[in-house]
Amino acid sequence: MRIPIVRNVLEANAKEADELRTYFSRHGIFALNLISSPGSGKTSLLECTLQDLGGVLNIAVIEGDLQTDNDARRIAATGAATVQINTEGGCHLNSHLVAEALTRLDLADLDVLFIENVGNLVCPVEFDCGEDAIVAILSVAEGDDKPEKYPALFERAQVLVINKTDLLPYVAFDLVTAVRHARRLQAGLPVFPVSCTARTGLEAWYDWLRAAVRRKKHCFRMF
Amino acid sequence: MRIPIVRNVLEANAKEADELRTYFSRHGIFALNLISSPGSGKTSLLECTLQDLGGVLNIAVIEGDLQTDNDARRIAATGAATVQINTEGGCHLNSHLVAEALTRLDLADLDVLFIENVGNLVCPVEFDCGEDAIVAILSVAEGDDKPEKYPALFERAQVLVINKTDLLPYVAFDLVTAVRHARRLQAGLPVFPVSCTARTGLEAWYDWLRAAVRRKKHCFRMF
Repeated sequence: MRIPIVRNVLEANAKEADELRTYFSRHGIFALNLISSPGSGKTSLLECTLQDLGGVLNIAVIEGDLQTDNDARRIAATGAATVQINTEGGCHLNSHLVAEALTRLDLADLDVLFIENVGNLVCPVEFDCGEDAIVAILSVAEGDDKPEKYPALFERAQVLVINKTDLLPYVAFDLVTAVRHARRLQAGLPVFPVSCTARTGLEAWYDWLRAAVRRKKHCFRMF
Repeated sequence: MRIPIVRNVLEANAKEADELRTYFSRHGIFALNLISSPGSGKTSLLECTLQDLGGVLNIAVIEGDLQTDNDARRIAATGAATVQINTEGGCHLNSHLVAEALTRLDLADLDVLFIENVGNLVCPVEFDCGEDAIVAILSVAEGDDKPEKYPALFERAQVLVINKTDLLPYVAFDLVTAVRHARRLQAGLPVFPVSCTARTGLEAWYDWLRAAVRRKKHCFRMF
């Protein structure tokens, strides 16, 4: 009984996500959906990115949380346009929530839209939010077995950021093992080890992001 | 359309959970449901507990994971009886999966049943597994804001274990803040800061567990 209902929900979500993606393409906006466990550093990665690239790219952020506007306040402190979605217990964002949030953002001349999902390594993967790319984030404190144990995200993501590398001396996390597990699920997945606290490794992530934005703008101008 | 279906699923789950709880009470088994983000240390806490208390308490473990039997193999290495449930993408355990797993365990003379849920700070809280107590686990690497941002678990749990305290010198986590947030949701919540890696703080958690098992056995003998 439950399965067809769930399928309807997913189909309605996919339809609205496709509409969002068309909108983003027509306006040359590169949209990214950030997915990770709670506390892997999604907001910290955004803070660094906004501080370092906010001068050259026009970036807006949609913050998804069960409760509180703590993260939106952290993002707003960087000067970026931010909208908070509180899911009131919901375990993931969806395309309808994103579409509603967009009505509260100035989308003119926007280069990049970051959608920070609810901290959850499982459910958000099922719900397309109209993004061009999923960014998976994994903290070294979570363990190098997580791609193997929670494969769906690592199969779907366009890029993997491994955060908190400053903790590597203190935890049992082998970077080679983690990357091998992730690339067994998806050969050639770009992986960027970074520390948002120590501000190391971020330049490679920025290079990837700038190149992706350029490609999107190029396609936007061609069509 | 979707809400009544979900309610039916939750009601059916609650009914089977109550049957499990009755079974556990009749047999003097103390059942605990371990809930946390991925990589907070549920399996490590169980490894320590089995190694240190396995000689005095008869303990069995149900391991819930999306994929792999890595955790069940870690638990089996301690000598404890273990059953692995693979949810194949499902984001939480439920009472029916637990009931099925129980058919594969020897329940005679069992003192404690640990149910290690899928790593997820949101969805497992909604699905009663027939437990006597929910054990919330939070790693200091996740940040002291997590009780505030993901309140449902901390409102429902009977006990909070704060793990990886060996990382406290290297992360921005204030124990007092985390405990204040958690106890704002639930006054008097027992909190045990531990490090499973450094094996510190565990004795207080063991004391709580032994006392809870004694209380359960006492009720079992009286009724």
